[in-house]
Amino acid sequence: MNDSHFSRTWLRALAAPLPEGLATPLETARFELSAFFPAPEAPEIRLQEDMGESYRIERTEGRPRLIGGRTGVLYGAYALILASAGGCPVPQGTSAPFYPLRVLSCWDNMDGSVERGYSGNSLWFEGGHVRFDKARIRQLGRMLASAGINVVCVNNVNVHFPAQELIGAQLDETAALAAEFRPFGVRLMLSVDFSMPLSCGVGTADPLDENVQRWWSERARRVWEAVPDFAGFMVKADSEHRPGPSAYGRTHAEGANMLARAIAPYGGALIWRAFVYDCMQDWRDTATDRGKAAYELYKPLDGLFDDNVILQVKHGPFDFQVREPVSPLLLGMPRTRLALEVQLAQEYTGQQKDLYAMPPLWREILDTVGKDRIEAFTAVSNLGRDAAWTGHPFAALNLFAFGFYAWDPDSAPERVMRLWARLTYHLKPGEEDTLVSWLLRSRSIYEKYTSNLGLGWMVTPNTHYGPNPWGYEFQSWGTYNRADRNGVGVDRTRAGTDYVSQYPQELKRLYEEPLTCPENLLLFFHRLKYTYVMADGRMLIQRLYDDHFDGCREAEEMAKALLALPLPPEDSEQVEARMRLQLENAREWRDVTNTFFHRLSGIDDARGRKIYE
Amino acid sequence: MNDSHFSRTWLRALAAPLPEGLATPLETARFELSAFFPAPEAPEIRLQEDMGESYRIERTEGRPRLIGGRTGVLYGAYALILASAGGCPVPQGTSAPFYPLRVLSCWDNMDGSVERGYSGNSLWFEGGHVRFDKARIRQLGRMLASAGINVVCVNNVNVHFPAQELIGAQLDETAALAAEFRPFGVRLMLSVDFSMPLSCGVGTADPLDENVQRWWSERARRVWEAVPDFAGFMVKADSEHRPGPSAYGRTHAEGANMLARAIAPYGGALIWRAFVYDCMQDWRDTATDRGKAAYELYKPLDGLFDDNVILQVKHGPFDFQVREPVSPLLLGMPRTRLALEVQLAQEYTGQQKDLYAMPPLWREILDTVGKDRIEAFTAVSNLGRDAAWTGHPFAALNLFAFGFYAWDPDSAPERVMRLWARLTYHLKPGEEDTLVSWLLRSRSIYEKYTSNLGLGWMVTPNTHYGPNPWGYEFQSWGTYNRADRNGVGVDRTRAGTDYVSQYPQELKRLYEEPLTCPENLLLFFHRLKYTYVMADGRMLIQRLYDDHFDGCREAEEMAKALLALPLPPEDSEQVEARMRLQLENAREWRDVTNTFFHRLSGIDDARGRKIYE
Repeated sequence: MNDSHFSRTWLRALAAPLPEGLATPLETARFELSAFFPAPEAPEIRLQEDMGESYRIERTEGRPRLIGGRTGVLYGAYALILASAGGCPVPQGTSAPFYPLRVLSCWDNMDGSVERGYSGNSLWFEGGHVRFDKARIRQLGRMLASAGINVVCVNNVNVHFPAQELIGAQLDETAALAAEFRPFGVRLMLSVDFSMPLSCGVGTADPLDENVQRWWSERARRVWEAVPDFAGFMVKADSEHRPGPSAYGRTHAEGANMLARAIAPYGGALIWRAFVYDCMQDWRDTATDRGKAAYELYKPLDGLFDDNVILQVKHGPFDFQVREPVSPLLLGMPRTRLALEVQLAQEYTGQQKDLYAMPPLWREILDTVGKDRIEAFTAVSNLGRDAAWTGHPFAALNLFAFGFYAWDPDSAPERVMRLWARLTYHLKPGEEDTLVSWLLRSRSIYEKYTSNLGLGWMVTPNTHYGPNPWGYEFQSWGTYNRADRNGVGVDRTRAGTDYVSQYPQELKRLYEEPLTCPENLLLFFHRLKYTYVMADGRMLIQRLYDDHFDGCREAEEMAKALLALPLPPEDSEQVEARMRLQLENAREWRDVTNTFFHRLSGIDDARGRKIYE
Repeated sequence: MNDSHFSRTWLRALAAPLPEGLATPLETARFELSAFFPAPEAPEIRLQEDMGESYRIERTEGRPRLIGGRTGVLYGAYALILASAGGCPVPQGTSAPFYPLRVLSCWDNMDGSVERGYSGNSLWFEGGHVRFDKARIRQLGRMLASAGINVVCVNNVNVHFPAQELIGAQLDETAALAAEFRPFGVRLMLSVDFSMPLSCGVGTADPLDENVQRWWSERARRVWEAVPDFAGFMVKADSEHRPGPSAYGRTHAEGANMLARAIAPYGGALIWRAFVYDCMQDWRDTATDRGKAAYELYKPLDGLFDDNVILQVKHGPFDFQVREPVSPLLLGMPRTRLALEVQLAQEYTGQQKDLYAMPPLWREILDTVGKDRIEAFTAVSNLGRDAAWTGHPFAALNLFAFGFYAWDPDSAPERVMRLWARLTYHLKPGEEDTLVSWLLRSRSIYEKYTSNLGLGWMVTPNTHYGPNPWGYEFQSWGTYNRADRNGVGVDRTRAGTDYVSQYPQELKRLYEEPLTCPENLLLFFHRLKYTYVMADGRMLIQRLYDDHFDGCREAEEMAKALLALPLPPEDSEQVEARMRLQLENAREWRDVTNTFFHRLSGIDDARGRKIYE
């Protein structure tokens, strides 16, 4: 772990390796403060149990005083350290997390692979077992705690054999992993297989069956016996061929509540994923709209979930595209506890080769939804065994920033990015501005050269990297652009699939008309002719071409600017290699997409740039 | 092996299980004859070593007399048995195989998987080792010998670890497998990894390096010591990322000859595959034509290969599509020994779900090329561990017929099909006619509902099953249809890529002009507008629609007719299941392809049938 080729991410200033044997967040806090600050400056630290995760920093005559709860002391310690390392004033007053559950969801399989992972294999699974480098897990605990993340769901929501055994025959392995995270205030969560009682001799997984209920209660008892601070279960049910309550004619509320009741005695949370749709849709069927599925399924269940059920909703109605409107479910379940789910793993957004800083995306979502409508914040992890932790060293920003947004959803993108940049690299002010300004633009650039105007989904099937405009067009996944020689886009207004009616009146009115619909969602909500004239006078087809040319050119400028930055050697090689891939990808997207629309429309670029045949 | 659920294929009449301990083809022949014929009718059998693979059947007063070479006696025995079982007159006179090498190339990996296999896992590999059911391998030997196949290349041409060890640490396993096939006159061949000396301490695989040459000579010595009747090596080099001589600046002749010399002392054959092209082509590049690659590479090497090198050429210039012109290489290498390679595994032709009887295809190829131009016939296997051997029970026809064509390339498709049908099923004459007539039409039906007029390649990437018209369009594989709103097809005439100039004058003239070009190759050679008027007065676009509607309707008629046949229970369930999949596939192809062309062309179906949006 002290290998010099590992990226130190935003913890570059914390040079001291974490020792073994730290037992509590308080001990960790003491170690970190004493290792970072010279003895005379080391803050005084005081535990006040009832403060829980929060902390207060008081400015005394000499050194600051930190008072905090069991984990609050550690968050406070990192707040002091990061402020100091980042050259910021010592924070003062009380800080408490806005969301009590700040969950990192890791799609790690027990064979060591990571579904949609772009940073190497799992940090804790290998060969069907929990296996990890203790020093590396300690460093990870440090990363998570310093960013404020307090729950890690360690296995894939698609529960592949033998991950069921993490609450069964291999529960001791689960406990061993939990013990490593404990000194960092990080609690373990597991994804569970709804049908597990079936393979364990119960003969059914019907949530209304008493034997099933008893089986899960007994299972929960054993789990909390082994891991007393266990956080709860995450469930992907009735989704993409996963088993679920529908097999028994039960509702998702019945399914979720059954599990929730089994874990309620231990204070466990039951996170039920709302990512449910018909993945066997017939492309011929233009009336069915995948975007409507979750709302249609869950809206009638609002108010029927138990108190410890949290319905976890992806930010958009589809699946982590570069641009989607917010999921109407986030706005339509006032009597249900909701978690917002985002994806740090850049499945559709560049796979940690292409730069894509997410805070601007989250800012938009939170502003649209309102931070109070949700009670938990979950992010699909972008971590792996790579030396850089997140593949692209800059992708660590998203992990860091996620923790910050989950702690304080009012965060401003630029402020978080600047703090991350300052902690990670020691750049001159002008250089830091360069880095931050490109990070701020990176999403918009990616959007322009991939699928702009809300189109989405023009990706290579399966891998989800690189362009393939009709790769999913005649498939069963419900993701169509319906392009033809005249126009493109799906009509989701009342005249079309009427998806738009799932929104509250105000948003509905906004999206319903092409003239008021935000341009970046135009083709998400509307089907338009290539000759449609946009607000600035450009034809739609021209805007498609222009964005692709612009996005690619901006990616080139960005690469040039960022590759000129003086980065530490363990990061610079990775950054260079990945940015080269981004440029190849950007050119491929530009040319394929422009060629696609030119073949269909027959309309030439007004500016005479090269569009291939 | 005697499980009643195994298909008995065309050996339905051979009820006696083959005993262990048969040592030679003669012993096998004696057993088979005595088990099949009642004692008084059992043919007399006489070995005449110098006859090799050939045999002579003489009609004497009572029972026939069979005189044959070491393996000839076995081929003669099966000829007698199959004739009798098929109700044909006793064959008379001498029979000898036209091609001395009748090779089944099995793309089996040692983990048990089969590349492009649609009949279950490998029959002889499992878990990194040679592992097989002896009784099943004996039955397989019986199948191969009865069809006249005499060489089995047992491992994938893409040599994946640890298949290298089949001529190394695991050579004894190779020998054990060879021993099982020996009583059936079937000799083993192996695919080898051109770079193997590199990983065995030689430090290079340069074919002109003496150490490399010595290494291969020593390796060959060991192989033939372990397997004295070993047939030779098959090599896929410099193709799809496989290592080859180009890494050392050497020609394919230099690479092949080096290996050929190592095995020449043992009479081994070196089969060098000519399937070489740039699989990293830029789709933007319209001048490069993958179809031209093999000819350009090998034509200059004609006459430079050693005597025991056989250049193995796929039947078309691309890759086993439903329709391609014959490879110009087959017509352009007069001073090189050639093998013709076909693919029983229905990678692009329905994956043993869709019915696709191949004899009509081979008839066309052999008639165009001329049987004398080639010296060996190779087929990629369609075998696997499935109870039906070939997935779809009817796909066994292709294995059977391949052996017949390799023995007698003048065979008539209908005759072979009828013999297979008669041996396999005991149908009434009218029913047998039904089966044979649909088998004869099956390729044409598949062609109509998939990609007609020589288009090819509109398949789902990677899986190669089902439609995806632009799935490969913007990829690096060199397989494009270049469709746009006005027309479709690649211009391969002198005005285009000039691929057509690789053909002899007569064929070139034929293909060069749309008016003389066979319609089923029209869009292979020409780029035409959708409004192009075909010979029968229909527009090109209408022909695209018509064929897809017709093909799908014919598939439905075929399914109806074939499902009404009284098949044995162990076959009928499989046939029904697979035909159902074929119908789904045909409808998907029809609708996706028609929608694709309708979206592009905007031209409605003249007959007003349903084309989806």
